[in-house]
Amino acid sequence: MTKRVRIAIDPDRLWTRLMRLAEIGATPAGGVDRQALTDGEALAWRQLIAWGAEAGLSAFTDPAANLFLKLAGKDPALPPLLIGSHLDTQPAGGRFDGAFGVLAALEAATAIAAAGAVPERDILVVAWMNEEGSRFAPGMMGSEAFAGQRSVAAIRAAVDSDGVSAGTAIDRLHAAFPEVPAGPLGFPVHAYVEPHIEQHVLLERAGKVIGVVTGIQGKKTFEVEIAGERGHAGTLATADRKDAMAAFARVAAALYQRVGGHDPKTKFTIGRVEVHPNAPSVIADRVRFRIDLRHPDNATLDYGGRGVQHLTTVFAEPCAAVVTPLVSAASNDFDAGLRAMISAAAERRGFPAMPVLSFAGHDARQLATLCPSAMIFIPCRDGISHAETEWAEPAHVAAGAQVLCDVAMQVAGVAGKSVG
Amino acid sequence: MTKRVRIAIDPDRLWTRLMRLAEIGATPAGGVDRQALTDGEALAWRQLIAWGAEAGLSAFTDPAANLFLKLAGKDPALPPLLIGSHLDTQPAGGRFDGAFGVLAALEAATAIAAAGAVPERDILVVAWMNEEGSRFAPGMMGSEAFAGQRSVAAIRAAVDSDGVSAGTAIDRLHAAFPEVPAGPLGFPVHAYVEPHIEQHVLLERAGKVIGVVTGIQGKKTFEVEIAGERGHAGTLATADRKDAMAAFARVAAALYQRVGGHDPKTKFTIGRVEVHPNAPSVIADRVRFRIDLRHPDNATLDYGGRGVQHLTTVFAEPCAAVVTPLVSAASNDFDAGLRAMISAAAERRGFPAMPVLSFAGHDARQLATLCPSAMIFIPCRDGISHAETEWAEPAHVAAGAQVLCDVAMQVAGVAGKSVG
Repeated sequence: MTKRVRIAIDPDRLWTRLMRLAEIGATPAGGVDRQALTDGEALAWRQLIAWGAEAGLSAFTDPAANLFLKLAGKDPALPPLLIGSHLDTQPAGGRFDGAFGVLAALEAATAIAAAGAVPERDILVVAWMNEEGSRFAPGMMGSEAFAGQRSVAAIRAAVDSDGVSAGTAIDRLHAAFPEVPAGPLGFPVHAYVEPHIEQHVLLERAGKVIGVVTGIQGKKTFEVEIAGERGHAGTLATADRKDAMAAFARVAAALYQRVGGHDPKTKFTIGRVEVHPNAPSVIADRVRFRIDLRHPDNATLDYGGRGVQHLTTVFAEPCAAVVTPLVSAASNDFDAGLRAMISAAAERRGFPAMPVLSFAGHDARQLATLCPSAMIFIPCRDGISHAETEWAEPAHVAAGAQVLCDVAMQVAGVAGKSVG
Repeated sequence: MTKRVRIAIDPDRLWTRLMRLAEIGATPAGGVDRQALTDGEALAWRQLIAWGAEAGLSAFTDPAANLFLKLAGKDPALPPLLIGSHLDTQPAGGRFDGAFGVLAALEAATAIAAAGAVPERDILVVAWMNEEGSRFAPGMMGSEAFAGQRSVAAIRAAVDSDGVSAGTAIDRLHAAFPEVPAGPLGFPVHAYVEPHIEQHVLLERAGKVIGVVTGIQGKKTFEVEIAGERGHAGTLATADRKDAMAAFARVAAALYQRVGGHDPKTKFTIGRVEVHPNAPSVIADRVRFRIDLRHPDNATLDYGGRGVQHLTTVFAEPCAAVVTPLVSAASNDFDAGLRAMISAAAERRGFPAMPVLSFAGHDARQLATLCPSAMIFIPCRDGISHAETEWAEPAHVAAGAQVLCDVAMQVAGVAGKSVG
């Protein structure tokens, strides 16, 4: 039987780096605006690569602009352990969503390297491209491409609101890092573990520090375009109008009530709306909007999705509506073995832990189709996320990284002297 | 008894100029995007001033960036006749709204000057600043300032969506025309006549060429801001949400149905909506939108306005809503004497005419508070306006300008040899 090895992460180094990273794209209100493939993300790459190099980690990327930092193991032929999350944020996002997972993974790898321990297999710290989907839709582009769920061509064709394609932005990012070698898209993976803030209040309310994530709530997203006819707000008689905004109001009110109100577990959101021509005295001829629908039960989620399609068409009349499904992700269960390891690690370290469902989507959903996968949650204040006031306690940040480090050592096979 | 003088306008010159002006800000779909105080409007000023100079008209401006071209009369002490409209367009506007009125006025003055006739009083061709209100809100800024209904300070404080103030834009426009003298804001006016496309189907359906405008339908506009709380679309339970978009959907659906559906004469439009942060998976914390409400009956208009205030507050709950009235313009009646002159001129020229209500607002509403005012409408195809497909027949354009010329000669006191 192998001797149990303990390596301690450095809480101060991790916290300092989290706050340093938050300076890239910092907003006046204390949040972060560092959207996918922007100059801000390039700066974050540069910082991450430099920190990785200090610990002996070597960087490489892939055609989907995912970034990997490798802690080399003894046997390069073994599939690696992947740990990490994403560096991009919402337009008015926080300091922890994504960044905590990447830096906790970097901290785990750094602590292992600093202890002079060498894992049996490579440990790769990963930063997935465009998890948030706010600049380029949909989100999870990097992990979807890695898992073979979306082609690189489809990803490159996405266009932001300024007309810039993701392809152009990827090439620009890669061109800024000529020293970072390009690897293939996708490769065998032994396991994936992603730390993240919970983005909910369950851990906080229960007084727990570690969430052993059971799975991810299912999600469907849609883009809807309602087509009306433009006209003068003062002259065209109501009976003769095809007002796309009036149609949107009817559709949105019906969807919020009938789909969103189906049961307390349903989450229905229209977060983005674009109106054309969006002028005060012009009847709108086009309203395009996004629907985000989630439910932990797959049958109920499918039922809600059919409701979106049906109600939109009916309530948009006399305008025409086109409903385009973007994402349809069923609820999933994370690997039982990894969940048990996370629970055991938290218990050994004395961190109160509990199982929790992830209500938000994460890159781990895609990785779970490739390899045993799991997530480690830590609490965030009042469950607030995707907001500049997002906050996690330093002690919880450290606890999450420590559990990740312990699990990573076990999964990647680290033996050596105990320093934890 | 004075000999009746007839002067013919030049239909080809007028049409050619209309099409030339439409090239400034031309859109690919055949419309015009020449919003207030933009480089496009400056180019339109330059072209108009040059055409005026060819006919001996001298340009001047005022602190509200209204542009005047003067055909000097015999007695400079007499208050002038004002004729014209506006040069700015909606973001996806047409070739005739505004431009027809200004160029018909220029054509009338040019024809009078070319005939060697000298009016008793000055005739001023005017282009009012920011009639449309699409770049800077509200519209009618130039004529409101001229009529003393809005201060220059208030106008200058308006800010466009890029954060540029109208004051900055006015100064920039004025700086581009150092040769154009600055006159005072507002002065005594003898009468005002504004030609315009009808923006409705009444003339077209009745087979009439000239609309003798009886008055302008009353209008109220509001800006509404709904304040919610931001949150993650996948995690925050519906019961705990203050989703500003859900509130907007309820408010907009209720207003369209209850205020917009009050009677067939009510016109209710939400044309502009801004969502914050407008990201697909973020619960909106702010939705700001504009309401345009019109009715020819002042009591019904007031009733609708109270409905907007009340229903918005009720249906926005649990979000907070602030309703800010922007414009409150009662229905008005144009001058009976000028209307009779327009009818008589149309009859003498053999143009089928009829009285019509203006369902759209116009600068003439403000001028009517200062002096006898009237409007001359011509048909536009299918009543379509504020759209790139806006169209008026060359023969109708010429007829409108000819009637304006005839009325202008009568009001300004033109005597000379008959060339019409």
